[in-house]
Amino acid sequence: VKISKPTLLIDRYKVALNIDKMIKTAAEAGCVFRPHFKTHQSKEVGKIFREKGVNHITVSSVSMAEYFAEDGWNDITIAFPCNILEIDSINNLAKEVELNLMTDSAFTANFLSKNLINKCGLFIKIDVGYNRSGLEYNSPEIDEIIKSCEHSNNLIFKGFLTHDGRNYSAIGKAEIERNLVEAINIFKHLKQKYPGAIFSWGDTPSCSLSDDLSFFDELRPGNFVYYDVMQYHIGSCTLDEIAVVAACPIVSINKSRNEIVIYGGAVHLSKEFIAAENSFTLFGYAVELKNRKWKHPINGAYVDRLSQEHGIIKIPAAELGKFKPGDIIGILPIHSCLTANLLNNYYLLI
Amino acid sequence: VKISKPTLLIDRYKVALNIDKMIKTAAEAGCVFRPHFKTHQSKEVGKIFREKGVNHITVSSVSMAEYFAEDGWNDITIAFPCNILEIDSINNLAKEVELNLMTDSAFTANFLSKNLINKCGLFIKIDVGYNRSGLEYNSPEIDEIIKSCEHSNNLIFKGFLTHDGRNYSAIGKAEIERNLVEAINIFKHLKQKYPGAIFSWGDTPSCSLSDDLSFFDELRPGNFVYYDVMQYHIGSCTLDEIAVVAACPIVSINKSRNEIVIYGGAVHLSKEFIAAENSFTLFGYAVELKNRKWKHPINGAYVDRLSQEHGIIKIPAAELGKFKPGDIIGILPIHSCLTANLLNNYYLLI
Repeated sequence: VKISKPTLLIDRYKVALNIDKMIKTAAEAGCVFRPHFKTHQSKEVGKIFREKGVNHITVSSVSMAEYFAEDGWNDITIAFPCNILEIDSINNLAKEVELNLMTDSAFTANFLSKNLINKCGLFIKIDVGYNRSGLEYNSPEIDEIIKSCEHSNNLIFKGFLTHDGRNYSAIGKAEIERNLVEAINIFKHLKQKYPGAIFSWGDTPSCSLSDDLSFFDELRPGNFVYYDVMQYHIGSCTLDEIAVVAACPIVSINKSRNEIVIYGGAVHLSKEFIAAENSFTLFGYAVELKNRKWKHPINGAYVDRLSQEHGIIKIPAAELGKFKPGDIIGILPIHSCLTANLLNNYYLLI
Repeated sequence: VKISKPTLLIDRYKVALNIDKMIKTAAEAGCVFRPHFKTHQSKEVGKIFREKGVNHITVSSVSMAEYFAEDGWNDITIAFPCNILEIDSINNLAKEVELNLMTDSAFTANFLSKNLINKCGLFIKIDVGYNRSGLEYNSPEIDEIIKSCEHSNNLIFKGFLTHDGRNYSAIGKAEIERNLVEAINIFKHLKQKYPGAIFSWGDTPSCSLSDDLSFFDELRPGNFVYYDVMQYHIGSCTLDEIAVVAACPIVSINKSRNEIVIYGGAVHLSKEFIAAENSFTLFGYAVELKNRKWKHPINGAYVDRLSQEHGIIKIPAAELGKFKPGDIIGILPIHSCLTANLLNNYYLLI
């Protein structure tokens, strides 16, 4: 296939290494490995996991659960606050696969206890400090939710789940280990009070960096399959471990500003960025592509700004001369989950 | 259709009013109206334009040109630096429709002059200060490009095109009028030197606010069809003129933080935001939906942060009590072009 539009190149070899490493992490921690598939949203990439023996997965929407169920995945956790408007789809799915839902709402649990017609597991979302969703460990709503499960034949309480999103704005292992200690201290209360509950944990930075995840029963990292520039900045991965680039056609060269204009904008890469001092913003690193493979970023080259379809790369004059319109340049994405979502129909597994 | 997932509601009545107003603006300026269809990317919305007599359109990619050509649009300008890797698709398109390309590169023009097999118009992109793409008005590359056209049977020089993206970070009419005067002063040099050239202009803020666009021959605004919170902040529209909301299921309520968690995140709304002081960021306003219609934003309610599938709405306690999981709430998007792109397969024209 000739590349003529923005296309996600997925390096199969790097993906396999990233998966192997995380399988080992989960095994060493004595955890079930339930990777989050929202990062790749691809049956083809799912197959690489399956070939390595993975058979439990996490997704973040009912639609994604349906997509992977179609491909034979039959043990799926939807790690997103249950959307009761999708009860019909949930009931249909739960007929076919082992399905786990999640909520932090007694209202939702009560609704599910009355409206599920097939068995579903239920995880209660706990907030360990990220303040996005989830209950405090000592919230009385926890027992209300568990009571709803006890009154239902189909809603089965499974345990507690969290996502420590603080780790996405952390820098380095020490900060992540501190967050982890805090989270475990919160979870310890619950482990005492609810013995037998499953404790499900998952974020790529801590799963990549922490020395001891043995407190948990299950790990749900997702991003690690591709990694990205954000994870590199956190310290979760090396640049070499980033398994995807957006291959983008060069459409213009601006010699007076040392800039390259690419066909590759917000609708391909997403507007996720890393901010630094002096209102510097980074929307991706640029790499040279040789036979669709890449090495380190071009020294001093980065995506400086994006509009809907345009990306502007700043690049030193000495490097600029190597490129002309019609060449393809690679962009290491800031946040691979969002880039992969946008290029969902335009990827090559190489 | 029951709404159970993030869905773009497009108010047909507001769309029609927005189009009527812009048709009038173009007529008063004596300009051809060539609206940019990248905002809606929808044949159905295109039909509303067609019923009002519009028959020239602008798009920002070859793919979008193909999509609208399929629907019978036969006069299309691709206002994006021509991507020579798509030469085959361009040649196929140019067989079927009146096609105009754009470039700021003599290299590209030379390539086109040799590789086009059907006639295409060519606009030269001029930079009037936005510094994204385009040539300076006095660049010798302009004559090189025109020379390529003269040496070609198929590449026909049409004129000059610009997009003054500075107007997207302007506030208020005065600043936009100042930008316009600057741009016209630049274009005047070209009008003198190249009499007969078409001068094509287009951005929603100036087309919405300027008193006199009669210098130009053609207007290409796009966003105005929907408008959005960013345009409201610039002053291009009233809140009432915003013609789309993302209807999002409520999945959780957090009373201790006065927050609503919605199914509606970066993959639905985009990560575009408006930044204000004290690192306040705004990802959208929240509106109540009644029979899928909305009025003004709920006082004090706004989208405070987004992750992949989650959105977090801050809302005053007095308003919070009205909502529960399973309700649908509307989000006025920051940048409707990006939101409409993401919800391209999930919209209702109402």
